[in-house]
Amino acid sequence: MRLFDFNRAPNPRRARMFIAEKGLDIPLVPVNLYAKEQLSPEFQQINPGCTVPVLETDDGTYISEVVAICHYLEARFPEPALLGATPTEQALVLMWNNIVENEGLPAIAETLRNLSPGFRDHVFPGPVSYAQMPALVERGQRRILQFMDRVEQRLGTSHYLAGESYTLADISLLATVDFAGWVDIDGRQGRPALADWHARVASRPSAAA
Amino acid sequence: MRLFDFNRAPNPRRARMFIAEKGLDIPLVPVNLYAKEQLSPEFQQINPGCTVPVLETDDGTYISEVVAICHYLEARFPEPALLGATPTEQALVLMWNNIVENEGLPAIAETLRNLSPGFRDHVFPGPVSYAQMPALVERGQRRILQFMDRVEQRLGTSHYLAGESYTLADISLLATVDFAGWVDIDGRQGRPALADWHARVASRPSAAA
Repeated sequence: MRLFDFNRAPNPRRARMFIAEKGLDIPLVPVNLYAKEQLSPEFQQINPGCTVPVLETDDGTYISEVVAICHYLEARFPEPALLGATPTEQALVLMWNNIVENEGLPAIAETLRNLSPGFRDHVFPGPVSYAQMPALVERGQRRILQFMDRVEQRLGTSHYLAGESYTLADISLLATVDFAGWVDIDGRQGRPALADWHARVASRPSAAA
Repeated sequence: MRLFDFNRAPNPRRARMFIAEKGLDIPLVPVNLYAKEQLSPEFQQINPGCTVPVLETDDGTYISEVVAICHYLEARFPEPALLGATPTEQALVLMWNNIVENEGLPAIAETLRNLSPGFRDHVFPGPVSYAQMPALVERGQRRILQFMDRVEQRLGTSHYLAGESYTLADISLLATVDFAGWVDIDGRQGRPALADWHARVASRPSAAA
């Protein structure tokens, strides 16, 4: 196996943290997004969506999308369980991971990609150009704060995001809260449950992966 | 168990199709999105994200997010398998389901919600208001076509979206292709593989669920 990776980006970080929590040693293949290597014909053969991470399995299958990569690794290396133990726990992990993916990450990406000169004409991943729209920066910032408020509410009554155990949902949320720093939003400010949770998960060795 | 549902919306349809393919009989609880019942204090207790579907399990857990609901039902009722048999198959189902959720559905939602008077000030689900931006209609239409091109490429070499078997990924894509009709886009036009696939999956009894 090997993982197509970019050290700076939040989604590859989610995969690397998951791999670190599993204690696995999977070689990394760097794809330099700053040099737009993900748009090369060679990488489009690997992932037409032009995103990282991508896991290449031992039988040569390319798996994109973090949740799919993590599910594959959990099936092959069940311990420690990071996707829940019972059907209900598993559902809550997938649910909260999806909420982070659908509400948190896109809001930050929208803000950053419509703001940063590096994303001019590349507001979305992939080979098709989309122009920046400055009005989306302010909207994105509001969406980020709305998302942070939602997870603050949840973490006020739940030790970890999906329940009493540390899971992929926490990995995804940590990458997301830290990613918000790129647009100068610190979700911990004024949100004590999120701040407490962040201190706990950021101190795990996997956070440095 | 019971499913909080709205008959007209694409995400509840995905859950209903999955339930129909499993041969399950789960009572439906209608939540009228046209009357904004999802924003009521009562429903926000069930799902602060204000989305449907939500599955209430027999132990009283509320599960939102289609992928989480389907994973829960697959764990409890394994046959017929709709999330893949092997770790690789399961990963490809989650991967393609996620691509549909991240690239297909949001593009259509962006187009519809920035266009239709019914979504004025409600460009996103949930209790927070966001104004319509007409420029996002044209952008959304381009994103929809980009997504349709991607699945056409895939279906040119794969009988079903995630591989050789019908899975949740097909359920999600069928709901998405049909949802695009709401903004007058027929992805089947000029895309023979998608048209052939659509004819096969739309003829299954579950498509009427």
